[in-house]
Amino acid sequence: MSSSDIKALVFDVFGTVVDWRTSVSRQAAQFGAKHGISADWNQFADDWRAGYHTGMARVNSGEDEWKIVDQIHRERLGVILEQYGFPPIAEDELAEFNKAWHRLDGWPDATSGLNRLKSKYIIASLSNGNIALLTNMAKYANLPWDAVLSAELAGRYKTHPRAYQKTAELLGLKYDQVMLVAAHNGDLRGAINAGLKAALVTRPDEFGCSQQADLEPEPDFDYFAKDFHDLAEQLGCE
Amino acid sequence: MSSSDIKALVFDVFGTVVDWRTSVSRQAAQFGAKHGISADWNQFADDWRAGYHTGMARVNSGEDEWKIVDQIHRERLGVILEQYGFPPIAEDELAEFNKAWHRLDGWPDATSGLNRLKSKYIIASLSNGNIALLTNMAKYANLPWDAVLSAELAGRYKTHPRAYQKTAELLGLKYDQVMLVAAHNGDLRGAINAGLKAALVTRPDEFGCSQQADLEPEPDFDYFAKDFHDLAEQLGCE
Repeated sequence: MSSSDIKALVFDVFGTVVDWRTSVSRQAAQFGAKHGISADWNQFADDWRAGYHTGMARVNSGEDEWKIVDQIHRERLGVILEQYGFPPIAEDELAEFNKAWHRLDGWPDATSGLNRLKSKYIIASLSNGNIALLTNMAKYANLPWDAVLSAELAGRYKTHPRAYQKTAELLGLKYDQVMLVAAHNGDLRGAINAGLKAALVTRPDEFGCSQQADLEPEPDFDYFAKDFHDLAEQLGCE
Repeated sequence: MSSSDIKALVFDVFGTVVDWRTSVSRQAAQFGAKHGISADWNQFADDWRAGYHTGMARVNSGEDEWKIVDQIHRERLGVILEQYGFPPIAEDELAEFNKAWHRLDGWPDATSGLNRLKSKYIIASLSNGNIALLTNMAKYANLPWDAVLSAELAGRYKTHPRAYQKTAELLGLKYDQVMLVAAHNGDLRGAINAGLKAALVTRPDEFGCSQQADLEPEPDFDYFAKDFHDLAEQLGCE
């Protein structure tokens, strides 16, 4: 495959573009301090995140009706606040804290690397996060998307093929003119199954120091890069 | 209403942000020269555009199934090329010429004005144009959208209320936290009927020198500006 056949790069966002764990942990520590709770806030972020995959799986299986990630996060938040011993908190304040996921910092190469890739390709998000979350995050973290796209627009979460295919269709492109960039092999496998191209960018710090998975590409991935600048160089961007 | 209640500005695009008539006319003149056809190319642009409203009305009435604006433009193109005496042309070349509507120049204040408005508000397209068209146009004309949204995502064309309401819902906002910015009173009336706010920005040159309509706001519009900088000043943007 030549990189000139690719017209658009679509990006997994949580973990691939932004460092959700550090960003949520920091905001949770502030929230905890306000309410007199001490905890391991990295663990809190992991525990909050743990509801994400379960919530999406229930939607894709048909067990639950469609619900956006903001709602999945909010439901999980209710569970873990109780586990961590928080007192009752007003709904407005919870809704605001739930938007911690809209305020995630990009990895150090995110904005500059995306700008390089944007000079040659259409760049768009392809996250399970909902459009509002991704739009607010792009403003917060200065992510220069050409388009904010999401599994929300397909009504199916990744790794359902329709999540990838709907994104290519909205961009007016054939599936193999679109490449998913992600830090997670399972997501990239989903993209390949849907007919897209796949680029692994490793993010060894996503889960702190305990990560073993997703550090090596599978044999049929198209590109393998250590960050967005590395990918930009391999794709011949200036 | 205070401008601080507004969280997002959503924009009509054809005529409001970009000068479609001059841009399409210029590309049509080149296309005509290549095929040995002389014509009034402003009139050609108007005639091409004339199919747009009819095509959308047929979709909203249920007479036609959903079709994207690229398809509406392509069907209309077939009709007018015959009227203007063009010889048969290969489909690939027609598909490329049909993308003239993806390559429209912004009005002189478009990029700089949008950047000022973006400093204080979420800014997004809310066009009947499809996502691919709007994404390519944003790259071509340097339109710094926070999100590229479209009636395509509602499956209903403006001025159907769902086109406006779906956009607000995708942004996670209440209808009255979103203001449509448009150069067309009918579009703004549709926004108000759907529960959004409305700002008229006049574009007296959209149709050349013959325009009489859409130069004055209706009494219940929220803002009335002569260009995006004027609107930015009224909204207190730097």
